[in-house]
Amino acid sequence: MRASELPLFTSKDDPSDAQVVSHRLLARAGYIRKQGSGLYAYLPFGNIIHRKIEQIVREEMDRAGGVEVTLPVITPAELWQESGRWDIMGKEMMRMEDRHGVGYALGPTHEEAMTDLARSYLQSYKQLPINFYQIGKKYRDEIRPRYGLVRCREFTMKDAYSFHTTDESLDETYQKMREAYRAIFERCGLKTIPVEADSGNMGGSGSEEFMVASSIGEETLLLCSDEKCGYRSNQEKTAFIENTKRGGSTALTDRSLSAVEGRIEDFDTGAAKTIEDVAKLTGQNPRDFVKAVIFEDKEHIYLCFIPGDRELSEIKMKNLAGATEYWAASEETIKALTGAEPGYTGPVGLKFSDRDVVSLNLPTGDGKKALRIFYDAHLKGREGLITGANKTSFHKKNVAEGRDFKVTDGHDLVNAHAGDLCPQCKKAELTETRGIEVGHIFKLGKKYAEKMQVSVLDQTGKPLTPTMGCYGIGVGRTMATSVEQNHDERGLIWPRNLSPFMVYLVSLVKGETETAFVDKLYETLQARGISVYLDDRDERAGVKFNDAELVGFPFIVTVGKKTLESGKIEMKLRRTGEKLELTEAELMEKIL
Amino acid sequence: MRASELPLFTSKDDPSDAQVVSHRLLARAGYIRKQGSGLYAYLPFGNIIHRKIEQIVREEMDRAGGVEVTLPVITPAELWQESGRWDIMGKEMMRMEDRHGVGYALGPTHEEAMTDLARSYLQSYKQLPINFYQIGKKYRDEIRPRYGLVRCREFTMKDAYSFHTTDESLDETYQKMREAYRAIFERCGLKTIPVEADSGNMGGSGSEEFMVASSIGEETLLLCSDEKCGYRSNQEKTAFIENTKRGGSTALTDRSLSAVEGRIEDFDTGAAKTIEDVAKLTGQNPRDFVKAVIFEDKEHIYLCFIPGDRELSEIKMKNLAGATEYWAASEETIKALTGAEPGYTGPVGLKFSDRDVVSLNLPTGDGKKALRIFYDAHLKGREGLITGANKTSFHKKNVAEGRDFKVTDGHDLVNAHAGDLCPQCKKAELTETRGIEVGHIFKLGKKYAEKMQVSVLDQTGKPLTPTMGCYGIGVGRTMATSVEQNHDERGLIWPRNLSPFMVYLVSLVKGETETAFVDKLYETLQARGISVYLDDRDERAGVKFNDAELVGFPFIVTVGKKTLESGKIEMKLRRTGEKLELTEAELMEKIL
Repeated sequence: MRASELPLFTSKDDPSDAQVVSHRLLARAGYIRKQGSGLYAYLPFGNIIHRKIEQIVREEMDRAGGVEVTLPVITPAELWQESGRWDIMGKEMMRMEDRHGVGYALGPTHEEAMTDLARSYLQSYKQLPINFYQIGKKYRDEIRPRYGLVRCREFTMKDAYSFHTTDESLDETYQKMREAYRAIFERCGLKTIPVEADSGNMGGSGSEEFMVASSIGEETLLLCSDEKCGYRSNQEKTAFIENTKRGGSTALTDRSLSAVEGRIEDFDTGAAKTIEDVAKLTGQNPRDFVKAVIFEDKEHIYLCFIPGDRELSEIKMKNLAGATEYWAASEETIKALTGAEPGYTGPVGLKFSDRDVVSLNLPTGDGKKALRIFYDAHLKGREGLITGANKTSFHKKNVAEGRDFKVTDGHDLVNAHAGDLCPQCKKAELTETRGIEVGHIFKLGKKYAEKMQVSVLDQTGKPLTPTMGCYGIGVGRTMATSVEQNHDERGLIWPRNLSPFMVYLVSLVKGETETAFVDKLYETLQARGISVYLDDRDERAGVKFNDAELVGFPFIVTVGKKTLESGKIEMKLRRTGEKLELTEAELMEKIL
Repeated sequence: MRASELPLFTSKDDPSDAQVVSHRLLARAGYIRKQGSGLYAYLPFGNIIHRKIEQIVREEMDRAGGVEVTLPVITPAELWQESGRWDIMGKEMMRMEDRHGVGYALGPTHEEAMTDLARSYLQSYKQLPINFYQIGKKYRDEIRPRYGLVRCREFTMKDAYSFHTTDESLDETYQKMREAYRAIFERCGLKTIPVEADSGNMGGSGSEEFMVASSIGEETLLLCSDEKCGYRSNQEKTAFIENTKRGGSTALTDRSLSAVEGRIEDFDTGAAKTIEDVAKLTGQNPRDFVKAVIFEDKEHIYLCFIPGDRELSEIKMKNLAGATEYWAASEETIKALTGAEPGYTGPVGLKFSDRDVVSLNLPTGDGKKALRIFYDAHLKGREGLITGANKTSFHKKNVAEGRDFKVTDGHDLVNAHAGDLCPQCKKAELTETRGIEVGHIFKLGKKYAEKMQVSVLDQTGKPLTPTMGCYGIGVGRTMATSVEQNHDERGLIWPRNLSPFMVYLVSLVKGETETAFVDKLYETLQARGISVYLDDRDERAGVKFNDAELVGFPFIVTVGKKTLESGKIEMKLRRTGEKLELTEAELMEKIL
């Protein structure tokens, strides 16, 4: 294509809201344009790349036995009600009503729709396994859309859903999908880290995320420092195992307040509420505090006790509680529960036990919520602890688990971090890195098939509920992360497989003979199957070179006056910056 | 592909709600599946065809100089407010709010979004003309979604928007698009009729629809019976020219009541209100009545007088009045306007004139609406007419235009029909046919560019408002209409360019040697670039043949026991039903 046919949309300025390099460069190089919060238009070059990624995904999915379909994007509410997710999905799911008041979701994912499709066609075990996939728009009403294509509200996903008669069959397809994903990301020139992941509200038994390491990543990944072990996990999924070498129970310091006296007693901490404040006041290590974190939903209060130096993992708590929509407990709820202001909650002397009903002074409803108390397992056996006293202004010191309160059923409730022990080898320490999720594969199990009553006949003619897997890849996010990994201060650097064109041909000549030379080169390259973008604009050389670097095709080929005299064409490799003077034959060879 | 890899989704039963053959066959042959009112899933074969049509559209658009982009489907309300269409688009536009209460439309069309894109990149006449296109989902909340893919609520469109410095440039692109559309439909094996069309709420000066003649068409097309003239138009756009040979003004019959007496007078028609009733009562020809049709909107009453034997064209009335959301006038409004019950409105003795303000007893507002009176031009010069008397139970007879009321400014207000004169040659009669719109091209003019303040600098450095064109094709509808034109009682008959596979290979053999023969044939065909679907299911021959006919690929090739003995392969041409016995070499030749 020529610039006169397919114009450049480059701009001199970065978009004012661009916080990350992919957003900044893709917008400035004219690949994308924001058209609303979390809504991006793909301009011509961006559109080409998006379609190339789609095609790579399609080819690898087909190779792995996937069967392409296209479901409607808007999904009737009744399907979501059938699975029970209409209420669970919360505000992140965009919803609308039609002219008759019938509700629809703008599909953030398609388990329900695909299960509905499957139940109407699948009758026999002979039809399984089958792996339906589609490539289409998805919608998520993010609280904070950001980072350009990384976190949008409208985006394109490849989502696949497989159906199986046995767990072994699911496992086989799951492994095929792992391999397909590796192949897809490799073809996109993207280095990914597969990690164990939480299954979230998708349900199911196992899942793995494909992460791109990036300082702007919103996920924290924990990797075992022993490569032989090879454990890699999303923080939200990583079990916490305390590393005793790093200030665990045998290495306590400054236990003056508790260990010495040995007797549980209340003490006035005044305005000091937080563990930080009370630790400062007492000189005691935060690890020897019991932190209380309290949530509630419509029917429950969730009271979590965890080590004072750790933060609660909301995901772990949520999975444990089976909670969906919940929020930090209100001051009123905390007062009703403990009799004290917030900040003084502790496990000792609490007037309610696990599963007790707490009466609340609520404006609506019957004013009763069931209490659930969860203890982090690491509190087991600890003593010399400081806790809230359930009395405003007071804490308790020298509290001992076992004597003063009991962790009968300890859970994994807190986030693991770098320095903790690897939960797989239990020897090496974990290291931390940030990542962006570009793909996610799940073993869903029978959750959807059961709720939506999918049934096929097995070999013996008995009905069988299939087990399911699902597999997603974000197309736009793959494009953005490719930029995060491939750019320099001058602009984008596309891998060959994604680049909109292979060659950016800069013409710096004007006369008839010279232009004919350029046209011939342009045609020769194309005849050899090399895609070329010919910058034939009436612009200064500097403008053209800058744009060539900014848009980032692999080869920048320049024809100037000198070229016709010497017969040598200048070629610059965009990635390395290396400059070569080549004959036409050498040029072809270099590119092909 | 083999049936074991890509299963058939054929079914024995027609969907219960299928009123048209394309819906019935596409569903039964497993190409599509309904997932809600006006919402269809594309199953594997349907998905392949949809993508083939998309690709044909893309290639022809690229050839015609189009530049592909992808805009977000959901469009911020503020863009629609800027153009003034947020209110105009009515209930057909699906709308939603995000978690912050910000409004969005699920784009039924993208003039606003594309104009917004253009204004941020277009600065100079040098960048024009440019023709942006996209292929993506569109949404329309149809009152009555029906006919399967013909009238859906979610569907894929190619929509293009061009920007120009001059009308000549717009004209040039408009012609290129006409040619591209002809090429697209030709490649899809679809016979289309281009007709003049109304521009509807798109605004603009000229437009043409590409219609597929079909008995299920929702559009009425009027074609000049003289092929040399070649006039073809949508009824909604066709000017009405009375054919005097067919009972026009010189051929009046039965004017007993009026022509004889010559004097205007009221007469009691009792309960007879409709023209049909009064005509029966009086024996007078409906043509010699004046029909009154009354609409209102929030601010106006529209009173239209037309010949009694014709129906009002709402489109013509709407375009004339500039009305957007309007409705049939209420009984109260008619009483306030005429002093009589509905059914007795006439042009003589009306107490209000055009542009008078009528006071209404409205529950809200100030209760005043401006009256607009429109006369159909054909009433000019007529006499001996019967009209309502603006008095309950009474009509007037022997009314004469000019004497008793005046058509000072006549309009074209009624629908033309078969038998009327062609508005182009004004000699031949029009014939009528039904059509389905598959494509539509518009000259939009400057409406959007002006409202949204698009401006580029012209050659002299002065700001210039570009003029625009827009061009749409329905992808799913193209698929459906192709079926309407290509099927028989046994199933679908795909044109070569659209068929998911070229060959349906029926294997009726079981032994090892025989299966190897089939596999080799399967591979040989594919090696020659012929796509093959191999039905290797463990099913009876009849089931396979029925499915082969139903899914409708061009060639049905059968390998049975006999084949191996005789060396002759049986091939059936799906369209003609012709059966041939061929060697492998002959088979290849026939298909290629």
